[in-house]
This record gives sequence, structure tokens and C-alpha cells, in this order.
Amino acid sequence: MKLTPLGDRVVLKQLEAEETTASGIVLPGKEKEKPQQAEVIAVGPGGVVDGKEVKMEVKVGQKVIYSKYAGTEVKLDEETFIIVKQNDILATVE
Amino acid sequence: MKLTPLGDRVVLKQLEAEETTASGIVLPGKEKEKPQQAEVIAVGPGGVVDGKEVKMEVKVGQKVIYSKYAGTEVKLDEETFIIVKQNDILATVE
Amino acid sequence: MKLTPLGDRVVLKQLEAEETTASGIVLPGKEKEKPQQAEVIAVGPGGVVDGKEVKMEVKVGQKVIYSKYAGTEVKLDEETFIIVKQNDILATVE
Amino acid sequence: MKLTPLGDRVVLKQLEAEETTASGIVLPGKEKEKPQQAEVIAVGPGGVVDGKEVKMEVKVGQKVIYSKYAGTEVKLDEETFIIVKQNDILATVE
Amino acid sequence: MKLTPLGDRVVLKQLEAEETTASGIVLPGKEKEKPQQAEVIAVGPGGVVDGKEVKMEVKVGQKVIYSKYAGTEVKLDEETFIIVKQNDILATVE
Amino acid sequence: MKLTPLGDRVVLKQLEAEETTASGIVLPGKEKEKPQQAEVIAVGPGGVVDGKEVKMEVKVGQKVIYSKYAGTEVKLDEETFIIVKQNDILATVE
Amino acid sequence: MKLTPLGDRVVLKQLEAEETTASGIVLPGKEKEKPQQAEVIAVGPGGVVDGKEVKMEVKVGQKVIYSKYAGTEVKLDEETFIIVKQNDILATVE
Repeated sequence: MKLTPLGDRVVLKQLEAEETTASGIVLPGKEKEKPQQAEVIAVGPGGVVDGKEVKMEVKVGQKVIYSKYAGTEVKLDEETFIIVKQNDILATVE
Repeated sequence: MKLTPLGDRVVLKQLEAEETTASGIVLPGKEKEKPQQAEVIAVGPGGVVDGKEVKMEVKVGQKVIYSKYAGTEVKLDEETFIIVKQNDILATVE
Repeated sequence: MKLTPLGDRVVLKQLEAEETTASGIVLPGKEKEKPQQAEVIAVGPGGVVDGKEVKMEVKVGQKVIYSKYAGTEVKLDEETFIIVKQNDILATVE
Repeated sequence: MKLTPLGDRVVLKQLEAEETTASGIVLPGKEKEKPQQAEVIAVGPGGVVDGKEVKMEVKVGQKVIYSKYAGTEVKLDEETFIIVKQNDILATVE
Repeated sequence: MKLTPLGDRVVLKQLEAEETTASGIVLPGKEKEKPQQAEVIAVGPGGVVDGKEVKMEVKVGQKVIYSKYAGTEVKLDEETFIIVKQNDILATVE
Repeated sequence: MKLTPLGDRVVLKQLEAEETTASGIVLPGKEKEKPQQAEVIAVGPGGVVDGKEVKMEVKVGQKVIYSKYAGTEVKLDEETFIIVKQNDILATVE
Repeated sequence: MKLTPLGDRVVLKQLEAEETTASGIVLPGKEKEKPQQAEVIAVGPGGVVDGKEVKMEVKVGQKVIYSKYAGTEVKLDEETFIIVKQNDILATVE
């Protein structure tokens, strides 16, 4: 099964394992907004969203930091995905 | 009886049976926003909604993940439908 | 006496009797937003409302599902009407 | 003394007596928004209000149903008036 | 000392004495919004305020009814003034 | 050290001493919004801020009344400054 | 590893040591909004963000005062960064 996001939405898969590596990434919880590292799985087509032209900037396979606050978790074939708006992605990580 | 949505609204029918299949889709509840899988039953004409041009992207028969938060349940001839704005549909599922 | 709605407003008359018919329409209550079936009694002229051009899509006599949340009840000559904005009408029913 | 409303504001005088006539208008209270019948006493010039062109549609002497929620009561020469924005007037009554 | 308001702001001086005259103006308190009669002391230049062109309509010396809710009290040389946006002035009184 | 404000921001220095002079300015506290007299220390360049063209109207050295509500206090080299948006400055004082 | 901010976002690194120097910067806490001094580490490309053209004004290496309220902390390779929108940067410090 395959998720195809609409508009300016992006499907992410959280990279949880790396949170425990010694020199890796640790993302401390804040009450209102928990930043998260994730991989981009699918990218919506962009276009006019809520009356504004949105150009998609992220690409499938990129690692990103996102703001979990507005995301929606979806389980599909026993994998968990997160669907966010591109605007909830703060930065890419290389 | 037949529901014809206005503007950018979409009539959905929830796919509840699949929630219990072994390798199927499980949609964990979040307090503020419960994502849901559903089938598209009817699609509004789009056009200018709240001063913004909206083009309808979903089609009758598609399976979609939607954010239940803003939806409205309607029972008609003993079937339950959900009416959402297209913007509350996060992704299509294939 | 006659109610003439202004702008994008619509005067509705609730169809309450049908809630109790066996195969009829049942509208389950949700705390924040109670959908309702009603008949369109009068339709405002539309035009520029809050700086946005609104075209009226509903017609007198149509049966509609509306979101009761923003509506205002008015009793006139012992009949009760509901005045809503067209945007609070979700779908027509045939 | 005379009240001259600014912008898209309208001066109303509530028609309270009619609430007690047998076949007259009864306006049931709702907690958030109490609709009211009133007579139009004075109408502002309209024009650009909050960056949007507003055309005044109501006329002095008309009876209107308004949403009391945003109105402001003013007592002048022992009479009580209500100043509302035209957008808070829901319908005219004939 | 002299107050010169910026943008669409207006400096007012409250007319408190008249609240006690027999046939004068009485402004009953409402919890959220206390209307007030005042004299216009100084008027800002208007122009583009928050991205919108504002034309000043009130003149120094006019008596006005304003919504106190958004106003700011300032004491200068032992006199108290109120600074409001023109949009918080509901009507002029003659 | 020197603070250079960005966009439509203005650096102010509060004039606290004058609050105790006999015929000076007294600014009574209001719970939500405490007006304050201050001197303009530095003025941002203006330009397009949040999609809107802002022209800076205040000048270094002017005395102004501002609404403290949205301001941010900064201590630099043992002096305290306040950074506000120009829109939070209500009037100049001469 | 390297953080590349999207849109109008800026990656900052807090300058905490200077808070304790005698003649340095002390940033007193306010409940809703804690101003902070930081160094700019990376700057997004700007462009159209939320339908509005944003031009990036800050440069890598600048010291800035920012409003912590909307920022997001990220730990990467045992260093802590803050990702803010450029609009949350109040001033540069020299």
C-alpha cells in the first residue's frame, strides 16, 4: 500500500534508532512542540494551497527536522508514518 | 437519498472493517485529531470558497486518509457519512 | 411577516419530524457542531461579503444539511427559523 | 442630540414591546448570541473599513434582526440605542 | 506638553461631568466593552496602517462615542487622555 | 555595544525618573497593557514586514508613549532597553 | 552533520557564557517571551513563505537578540541549536 500526500503535505518516517547513539541526535521534548528527525517518504504536488502558491522544496530520501505539533500519525501495513505540511519542516540534516 | 456537497466539501464513507485485519491499517487515536481511512462518495464543485479559488483533486471511489477533527457526521437512510473540506484530506491510499 | 436575509445569509426551517421515521434521517449530536437537515426558506443576495465576492448556490425549497454551530434561531409569527451563512451549509439532500 | 455612526456602523433602537404580543416575535435567548429585532435609526457612510470596501444595504426605518453579541449599548437623552456593524445585521423583517 | 498620535490613532479626553446631568448621556457599563463619550483632542495622520490605507474621518473638537475596550489611558500634566484607533470610535454625537 | 533593530522594530529607553515629578507624566497601570513613556534609541529600516510595506515614522531622540504589552526587555552593558514594533508606539510627546 | 534551514528559518547557537560577565548582557526572563542572545549559524534561502515574499536580512556569524517563544531546540552531535523564523529575531548586536 502507498500513501500519496495532497497539496503541500509530506509523508515522513521517523528515525527513532538514532536517538540512542552516543554522538547522534538527541531531541529533547518541549511541551508544546516536539522536534523530530525523520526521512522524507513522499512529497505532495504543491500548487495553490489555501489560496497561496506553494513550491515543494524537500525531496524523497532527505533527512529533516520537523515540528511534530501539527503532524498526524498513520499506521499502514504495520509501519508508522507522519503526514506534515511542508511548512512544519524546519531544516534538512546532512 | 443523495448528498451533494457544496463548495470544497467532500462526502466520505469510513472504512471501519479494515481496522481489525492483521496486516491492515491501524489508526491510533490522538486526542485532538483522529486520522481516518475512508472512501470518497461525492465531491463538491470547488470554485471560489471563502474568497479563494479551490480546485478539487480527489475523485469518487478513491481511498483517503483524513483528519476527522473538522468533519461532520451525517446519517442518511441508515448509513453514516462524513462531510469534510478537501483541505482536511491528508493523502490518498493505494 | 417575512424575513429577508442580508449578504450571504440564508433563512432555513428545520425538518424535525423526519428524525423519528424508521428509515429516515438521524442526525447524531456532537458536542461542538450539531448537523441538521432543513429546508431553504429565503436566500440573501450574496455579493461582496467581508471583502470577498460570494455567489449564492442554494435555492429556496432545497433540503440541506447545515452546521448548526454558527446559526441563529429566530421565532416569527410562532414559527422558528434559523439564519446561517451559506458557508455553514454542508450539502444538499435529494 | 444625534448619533452619526462611522464607517460600516448602524444605530438601532430595540423593539421590545413586540416580544409580548401573542402572535408577535419571540426571540429566544442563546447563551453566546441573542438575536434581537430593532429599527434602523441611522446608517454610517460605509466606504473602506478595515481595508475592505463596504456598501451599506440597510435603510433608516427598516426593521431588522441583529446579532446582539458585538453590539454596544448607548443611552442618549434617556433613550437607549445599540450601535452594531452592518455585518451583525442578519435579515430585514417586513 | 503635547501628544501627537501615530498612524490611525486618535487622542480623546473623556467627558465625565455629563454623565450626571438629568437629560444627559448615561453610558451603562458592560463587562467586555464600556462605551464612552469623549472629545477628540488630536488625530493621527492616517495613511497605510498594518498594510491597509486608512483615511481619518474624525476631527479635533468633535464629540464621539468610543469603545473603551482597546483604548490606552495616558496621564500628561495632570490631565488624563485616552488613545484609541479610529476604528474604536463608533459614532459622533451632535 | 550597539543594538540594531530589524524590520519595523524600534529600540526604546524608558524614562522612569519623570514619573515622580509634580507636573510630569504619570502612567497608571492597566492589567493587560501598561503604557510607557520612552526615548527612541534606534529605528529599524522598515521595508516589507510580514508581507506588508512599513514606513518608519519615528526618529531617534523622540519621546514616545508605547504599549508595553508586546515589547521585549533587553539588558546590554548594564542598561535596559525595550524593543517594540513601531505599531506598538501610540504617540509622540513634545 | 549540518543543519540547512528551510524558507525563512535561521539556525542559531545560544551565547550562554556572556550572561555572567560583569559588563556583559543580562537577559531577564519574562514569562511569555524570553529574549536571548545568539550567533547566527545558518540562514534559510527566504523566498515565498506562507504566500509572502521574505528577504533574508541576517548573515552567518552575526550576533542577534531573538524572541525564544517560537523557537525550536535541536541537539545535533552534542551541540544544541535553536531554529527560529527570521521574524523572531529582534535586533543584531555589535
